[in-house]
Amino acid sequence: VTHELSGIGTGTIIYCLESRLGIRGCFMTGVRPVFPDRGFIGRARTLRCLPPRTDLVQAQREAGVPTPHRAAIDGIGEGEVLVIEARGELDAAVVGDVLAARVKAAGGAGIVTDGCVRDLPGLRALDFPIFSAGVHASTFSNRHLGIAVDVPVSCGRVTVLPGDLLVGDEEGVAVVPGSVSEKLAVMAREQEELDEFSLRKIAQGAPLSRAFPLDAAYRAEFDGQRKETS
Amino acid sequence: VTHELSGIGTGTIIYCLESRLGIRGCFMTGVRPVFPDRGFIGRARTLRCLPPRTDLVQAQREAGVPTPHRAAIDGIGEGEVLVIEARGELDAAVVGDVLAARVKAAGGAGIVTDGCVRDLPGLRALDFPIFSAGVHASTFSNRHLGIAVDVPVSCGRVTVLPGDLLVGDEEGVAVVPGSVSEKLAVMAREQEELDEFSLRKIAQGAPLSRAFPLDAAYRAEFDGQRKETS
Amino acid sequence: VTHELSGIGTGTIIYCLESRLGIRGCFMTGVRPVFPDRGFIGRARTLRCLPPRTDLVQAQREAGVPTPHRAAIDGIGEGEVLVIEARGELDAAVVGDVLAARVKAAGGAGIVTDGCVRDLPGLRALDFPIFSAGVHASTFSNRHLGIAVDVPVSCGRVTVLPGDLLVGDEEGVAVVPGSVSEKLAVMAREQEELDEFSLRKIAQGAPLSRAFPLDAAYRAEFDGQRKETS
Amino acid sequence: VTHELSGIGTGTIIYCLESRLGIRGCFMTGVRPVFPDRGFIGRARTLRCLPPRTDLVQAQREAGVPTPHRAAIDGIGEGEVLVIEARGELDAAVVGDVLAARVKAAGGAGIVTDGCVRDLPGLRALDFPIFSAGVHASTFSNRHLGIAVDVPVSCGRVTVLPGDLLVGDEEGVAVVPGSVSEKLAVMAREQEELDEFSLRKIAQGAPLSRAFPLDAAYRAEFDGQRKETS
Amino acid sequence: VTHELSGIGTGTIIYCLESRLGIRGCFMTGVRPVFPDRGFIGRARTLRCLPPRTDLVQAQREAGVPTPHRAAIDGIGEGEVLVIEARGELDAAVVGDVLAARVKAAGGAGIVTDGCVRDLPGLRALDFPIFSAGVHASTFSNRHLGIAVDVPVSCGRVTVLPGDLLVGDEEGVAVVPGSVSEKLAVMAREQEELDEFSLRKIAQGAPLSRAFPLDAAYRAEFDGQRKETS
Amino acid sequence: VTHELSGIGTGTIIYCLESRLGIRGCFMTGVRPVFPDRGFIGRARTLRCLPPRTDLVQAQREAGVPTPHRAAIDGIGEGEVLVIEARGELDAAVVGDVLAARVKAAGGAGIVTDGCVRDLPGLRALDFPIFSAGVHASTFSNRHLGIAVDVPVSCGRVTVLPGDLLVGDEEGVAVVPGSVSEKLAVMAREQEELDEFSLRKIAQGAPLSRAFPLDAAYRAEFDGQRKETS
Repeated sequence: VTHELSGIGTGTIIYCLESRLGIRGCFMTGVRPVFPDRGFIGRARTLRCLPPRTDLVQAQREAGVPTPHRAAIDGIGEGEVLVIEARGELDAAVVGDVLAARVKAAGGAGIVTDGCVRDLPGLRALDFPIFSAGVHASTFSNRHLGIAVDVPVSCGRVTVLPGDLLVGDEEGVAVVPGSVSEKLAVMAREQEELDEFSLRKIAQGAPLSRAFPLDAAYRAEFDGQRKETS
Repeated sequence: VTHELSGIGTGTIIYCLESRLGIRGCFMTGVRPVFPDRGFIGRARTLRCLPPRTDLVQAQREAGVPTPHRAAIDGIGEGEVLVIEARGELDAAVVGDVLAARVKAAGGAGIVTDGCVRDLPGLRALDFPIFSAGVHASTFSNRHLGIAVDVPVSCGRVTVLPGDLLVGDEEGVAVVPGSVSEKLAVMAREQEELDEFSLRKIAQGAPLSRAFPLDAAYRAEFDGQRKETS
Repeated sequence: VTHELSGIGTGTIIYCLESRLGIRGCFMTGVRPVFPDRGFIGRARTLRCLPPRTDLVQAQREAGVPTPHRAAIDGIGEGEVLVIEARGELDAAVVGDVLAARVKAAGGAGIVTDGCVRDLPGLRALDFPIFSAGVHASTFSNRHLGIAVDVPVSCGRVTVLPGDLLVGDEEGVAVVPGSVSEKLAVMAREQEELDEFSLRKIAQGAPLSRAFPLDAAYRAEFDGQRKETS
Repeated sequence: VTHELSGIGTGTIIYCLESRLGIRGCFMTGVRPVFPDRGFIGRARTLRCLPPRTDLVQAQREAGVPTPHRAAIDGIGEGEVLVIEARGELDAAVVGDVLAARVKAAGGAGIVTDGCVRDLPGLRALDFPIFSAGVHASTFSNRHLGIAVDVPVSCGRVTVLPGDLLVGDEEGVAVVPGSVSEKLAVMAREQEELDEFSLRKIAQGAPLSRAFPLDAAYRAEFDGQRKETS
Repeated sequence: VTHELSGIGTGTIIYCLESRLGIRGCFMTGVRPVFPDRGFIGRARTLRCLPPRTDLVQAQREAGVPTPHRAAIDGIGEGEVLVIEARGELDAAVVGDVLAARVKAAGGAGIVTDGCVRDLPGLRALDFPIFSAGVHASTFSNRHLGIAVDVPVSCGRVTVLPGDLLVGDEEGVAVVPGSVSEKLAVMAREQEELDEFSLRKIAQGAPLSRAFPLDAAYRAEFDGQRKETS
Repeated sequence: VTHELSGIGTGTIIYCLESRLGIRGCFMTGVRPVFPDRGFIGRARTLRCLPPRTDLVQAQREAGVPTPHRAAIDGIGEGEVLVIEARGELDAAVVGDVLAARVKAAGGAGIVTDGCVRDLPGLRALDFPIFSAGVHASTFSNRHLGIAVDVPVSCGRVTVLPGDLLVGDEEGVAVVPGSVSEKLAVMAREQEELDEFSLRKIAQGAPLSRAFPLDAAYRAEFDGQRKETS
């Protein structure tokens, strides 16, 4: 999908959110790309998992309807990122290759969890963006009970609401509050230009005190260049 | 309140749930009584907290309605236990003495959280059952955003549904699945009689192999005594 | 010592710092009173400890001068609180009864560490305010090398500067930035009056929505009472 | 070595163990391949390490016989996997390149530990399957005392008995209880066929509700295909 | 029991072991008295627990002999301390009141574990020394499989051999290597005299640099006093 | 830069420090190369970070001089390694691509931190040795306040003094105490020859008991070869 934030790294997104818009709490801790070269942009579809409790597990099995775990996956929409709250649990997986394949086939943009994934070779073959806190072969029900779809979740110590815009790259996963998405896209591209200018000057020997942020002389030079190229 | 489980310890409750009913995942880890001599029995009213995200915090402030955090407390009903999911966060509190006072005044049975509480002297003065993972004076919004009232929560690695029966004593907090509450009460009293008998025999020198569980001879003696006393 | 903050709890101090002055990061996490009924007020004298490295330990032994560990203690002044940065290390102690006795005898106000203390019976006999993250009998050099006295330290995830005002009570330890100490004392006493009023109204059945913070009617009543008593 | 489980991934093994045989607790947590492309199958030879205690370390040094640490390695047999219990210790290694070279030269199938390994460049040159919880250059005796060879151990929160069959691949390490090994091999190959069929249908757009597990129609198709190919 | 170390605190024991005998690694981390006023001295009887694995749990159930868990307890001898290795597991208990009652009735000196205990009210009624890393009502088999009795174990990061002398007091648990027990008793009593002298001088205003360790003048005074009293 | 330790791995350095010089505590735990093929040798320039406290952050902003964070970087010298103490904080970064570019341009040898770095794609483009405990896009001030330059720091549980020699490779980071640097270089080269000899013999089937350390026969062979090649 083309998106106004396409090509902008999560580093720049978070820098702009925090330093220019004063919005904090948007980058997931401990959630890393399983395959570092596969990023994504998409809207969050969420699944909340709770610890298993025998009576609730049984009730869900006997209910005769798809569990939230399966419903969340089967019902994923075009361009959606499946965000699975797993309470940082590292002793069991929340998805394997078959479930991930369904997310991909249904047009999903990626899978993000602060738990683990399984079937690593199968996931690799799938060639799909997957971000997790780890890899573990034990199956879902060892540690999880899917409890609700498309409710607010916590993932990697970040609050994600259904519909939130998420961006994933080799650095990790950023959540972009919907209301600032457009403004942020403009800022972020500007920031990238600024950073490139700073990096060039620094490479030439300029100290931070002159080149980051730009002092008056460099700022003038930067503004001059921008005028030319626009 | 009188309740069929009144006077039964959480140890016996969990033993019966696990060993006799095969129900696991009902005792909270790391949630301890702030005041060990204050236990409770009550139905769960739940509050779910997520990590703060600047835009959501602001939206909630500007919404002009009570936050879920305050709504959960103000609306508590007679005999309800407020269960606050705090994701094990030990760097800020979820309630202090004033909020706890409201839970008490409204007829609440207790407060349980896997986060921290604050205003320890005030809480002590309140003389009310409070169970937490710790004590920390920093205020709620440093680490939390109340997001929903009376939804399923995770507390101390246990899933709690609104309306679940909770029992707290010096050992900690047990969740009793509603469907087994009556059956459990009968079992638990029976188990306590059995345990007392075992303890008496063990104190007299009997080995576990005879007295726990009871061998045939002790079982006959136990059954004989029960007949007499009933 | 009499101090403008005498009698004010750390809960109220932190509430005022955070909610009214916008100052965060002042309450120590995981640092609890070893003896809950012994609080203190005092100025910080700091000791910074680093992990032991054989060559540095030897150099210090051969230097022929008191180690920073001992110098920090021997040189403590009247009313000072010894704050020992121990990097959260729970496998060895930073002080025992003899060193603590020296702090007390020299007029120190208390000892605070995010490490452990040892000689618990001796410390109890000493009857002195001691706050730590735990108790462990292993001696200092197993995990620590005292490196500097009266430099900024981190203790319980709070930055403490030499000379900072510290308050300890059964809730834990608060750091009061020097510049706001007077202002804070006034605010805190006011806040305690407000809280008492709120608590009274809540005990009488008022909801949070009326009594915390006070609505217009209650505010008028509170102001009226204050005028009378002043 | 050829083995009935050759070519079966740990993901499939654990799925079959858990979901079809009801056997849990067989996949190691936090034990990852140091070189992801080097898997193994082999029987466990175990080494148990305990924390060092000065008197025991000295006694072992003075005993005049190889320590359990060295005996475990020198005596490894053809096709055996050395499993070293290291209590999750991340501050020192349990083997480096020289010890690992001996395991390889003696015909060992791999090395597995929930501690760390050292000499990473040397290990890479060795081209041998090594699975660990981390990498750390500090030597064994900093954190470990080898105490026993070929006793039951805990590794990555999994119990391993001497002689247990272990499989390692890029996902991690699975333990296969001896009694089910043959049955499991059959199941696992069947499961892989099923999963491939599910993956194909899902790629073509089938939802989980039809393709995982297979509904009646897909099941018939699958069975028909199997008949043809067999 | 009378013992040469009776009345010596674990603080003094560890100080002498570490500072005078150079023996480290003898004080348990995170293992605290459940009832701080109940200490003990005794010889270790050990029980090693591993994580449960379905097939091994079943095999043990079908074996028709007492499990190691029960055998360790039933066979405890006069003056023995039951040391249970629980790998720091905080989600389930290793003993409750009935099992602990058997240890007491059989003449055991105490129970020590780096896991949890259950039935807190019952344990309190038992009036017996119990040291643990926590309290949790879930039963043994949720997290443990007793695997061996009287083998070396790790408890609180300390290696304990069957027969080792253990001392527990309000500070925690120290292991005394058998070979140094007598020597240590003499040293420890001497050290306590020295510490008392140091504490007295420090209380009178002496700095550490004179009183800990004693300088020449104080040493002479101390030696003079000792001569008089002997 | 050429250096006497050039080409020696951290594994060999630590082995020699620990086993031959008795110097422990020199290898960082949990600090890994962000780009495993980029090592370094250099002298430490240190930056100490403490947790942010609102009043101190503001004071630093208003001071009108470069913060220690920026001063540490801008003032880095030829061949220096920037070592940033970050208290193991995994929720925010200490440097990104622009700051790292300045370290490189100023002739720095590398960056080492027990915190996180950000701008992973930019850092990759920079082609510079960077060692950290993780990657996180959140900016410095979320978790850090730079407090002092060129003071002793703790990084990865190792004490680093300004001017200490540091070596980084794919295994991690070793600190070489200045006083032993020359001696160590000789030992380390000797050790590498020995290890190569051991590895060759082991590959040919020799057991550890003969080849590591070398027995008399192998030692003679080794000494003979050395004489020839020198």
